[in-house]
Parts: sequence; structure tokens; C-alpha cells
Amino acid sequence: MAAKGGKPLTTIMVAVNQSSVKGYPHASISCTGAFEWTLKKIVRSNASGFKILLLRVEVPDEDGFDDEDRTYGSAEDIQSMQHSFILARLKFLKFFVKQCHDNGVACEAWIKQGDPRKLISSEVKRLQPDLLVVGSRGLSFFQKIFIGSVSAYCQKNADCPVIVINRSPSQTPEDNAED
Amino acid sequence: MAAKGGKPLTTIMVAVNQSSVKGYPHASISCTGAFEWTLKKIVRSNASGFKILLLRVEVPDEDGFDDEDRTYGSAEDIQSMQHSFILARLKFLKFFVKQCHDNGVACEAWIKQGDPRKLISSEVKRLQPDLLVVGSRGLSFFQKIFIGSVSAYCQKNADCPVIVINRSPSQTPEDNAED
Repeated sequence: MAAKGGKPLTTIMVAVNQSSVKGYPHASISCTGAFEWTLKKIVRSNASGFKILLLRVEVPDEDGFDDEDRTYGSAEDIQSMQHSFILARLKFLKFFVKQCHDNGVACEAWIKQGDPRKLISSEVKRLQPDLLVVGSRGLSFFQKIFIGSVSAYCQKNADCPVIVINRSPSQTPEDNAED
Repeated sequence: MAAKGGKPLTTIMVAVNQSSVKGYPHASISCTGAFEWTLKKIVRSNASGFKILLLRVEVPDEDGFDDEDRTYGSAEDIQSMQHSFILARLKFLKFFVKQCHDNGVACEAWIKQGDPRKLISSEVKRLQPDLLVVGSRGLSFFQKIFIGSVSAYCQKNADCPVIVINRSPSQTPEDNAED
């Protein structure tokens, strides 16, 4: 895909995830910051030169789509829950897609399920974006070992240049593992 | 400093260094790649939205401005050598500044002397660019320990988002510590 001048578009993959506190359809603080930074600092008013690829990787248990803790009384209960969940996911993606459209930037958004670290890397390999943008909670050394850091993994392993955008201190919750 | 639309410019600091094989005034393969990537993929045709800060950090012994191996027969010899060295440094900076001017991007270029890892980080702290771009030779784990990696240090310690641009395999010399 090429911009008006004939030069190929700069494709930027932005990894997005849901808020760890509020759940779907709310986006996490760090990925919202990384996405808005990309629009403001890189794309700026040159919307026709860029394409944004919005990738959400759901971790099965964390995201509740395989939730075994709930009780359902009937097939309708399950269908209703599934319907609400699909709507919440769509609303989540819409939050980003709408901002791209408002800024006139081409975009694509999709959801994958699995380990975010491996899936982001494999989607980078498949789509070969020019740049991967990932938000970071700014975990400490030990938190990185125990909780795991998607941004640190991508920075080491993704097959394209990576920008990690840290949350601003004013937006960091008391427990910085929350996002 | 603001772009025409009143939005502040996106300032990108690019760390540049001389070729380890050819010396001044030639630029290294990795920093040339990182600089050209920035113009092509980020700045694109939106030159009025960006300002590029070109920082060269000279390592005293490596860059020969404190070279004790040479013999000089007279004060004129020394003056002539100093003059050639100044010209070579200016020619080195001109290589980057000219490309910025040809693309219509505002830029500033300057030289500092000391440890590149610490000086790049302290210049980032002083000037607070939106982004730091650093080229990388793609050293192995052990090479990083023994030779040291400026890009890895900056990625960990710089107070702004960092993009590391790896050399393309086709441009990598047989000895990948060379650049």
C-alpha cells in the first residue's frame, strides 16, 4: 500500500490490551498512552503517510472468554454472556479505530488469543511493520521476573524496530503492576 | 519551537559516530542506516513537523584527537594535523546536516567528548527529545559484555523513548564488531 506521493506507507503496529482494573471495554493506561503518543509525535498531521495496525492479544484465563468460575442457568444465559463479551471486545477496538478515523489514518484492528509475547512477535514476522509500539508499566527488575514484561520481550525478540512508551508517573497507579 | 500549525515539533535525537574502519569523515554503517531510516519512515514528507538533533560523542583514544602514537617534527606539523582533523569532523557532520537540509528538516549537530553511553543519556536529560534513535551493530551476548553496546545501554537508561535500528544483514561486515 502506498501514500499519495507513491512512497510506501509507514506501517506501525501498536499492541493494545484491556485495563487490568476495569476490564473490557476499557483500554489499559499504558497502551492508551503508547497509541496516543504515536498519533501525536510520529503521525502528526501526515496521516496519509501511515497505516496503524492495532493488535490485541487476549490471554485466555485473564480475559474471561474461557472463564470456568461463572454459573449459567440456561443456554440463553450463556448466549447472553457471549453476546455481551463480543460487544465489549468490539467497543474496545472501536476506541482505537475511531481515533484513527478521526485523525484520517488508515488502520486495521484484530484480536488474537494466546501468549502476547509470542503472538506479537509472530504477527510482526507475518506482517513486517516498519515499527512496533508497545506501552510499558515500568515494572521493577523482580516484577519483570515474576509477572513478566511483554515490552521487554518484544524489544529483544521482535523482528522490527520497537519503541517502548512508559506510562507517565502521574498516570501510574499505586500498584504499578495494575494498568 | 512549534510547527506551522502551532503544535510543538517532534524532536528526534540521532546518535551518530564515525566509521570504525575508514575513520573520519566517514560515518558508520549503523548510524547512517538509523539516520536514513528516521528520515524515510518517520519524517517522510512532513519535514516541517520535526527537528533532528545530531549528537556525535567522540571517545578520546578511539577518535585520535588525543593520539600519542604520532610523531610531529614541528609546531606547523601539529597545527596542520589539528586543522585536518577539524575539517574531517566538520565534513562528517556535514554529511548528516546536508541530508536534513535537502529534506527540509530543521536540525542541529554537535560533538561531545567522553563515554558515549553516559553522554547520550545526559544529553537526552538536558534536551528532552521526544525520541532517541540509535543504530546497532547487532553484537552477540558475549560481544556486548566485552565490547559494550551503546544502544543496549541507551535503551535501558535514556529518559525518553528509544528506537534501535539494526544494520541490515547485507550491510554487516564479516567482523560484525566493525562498523
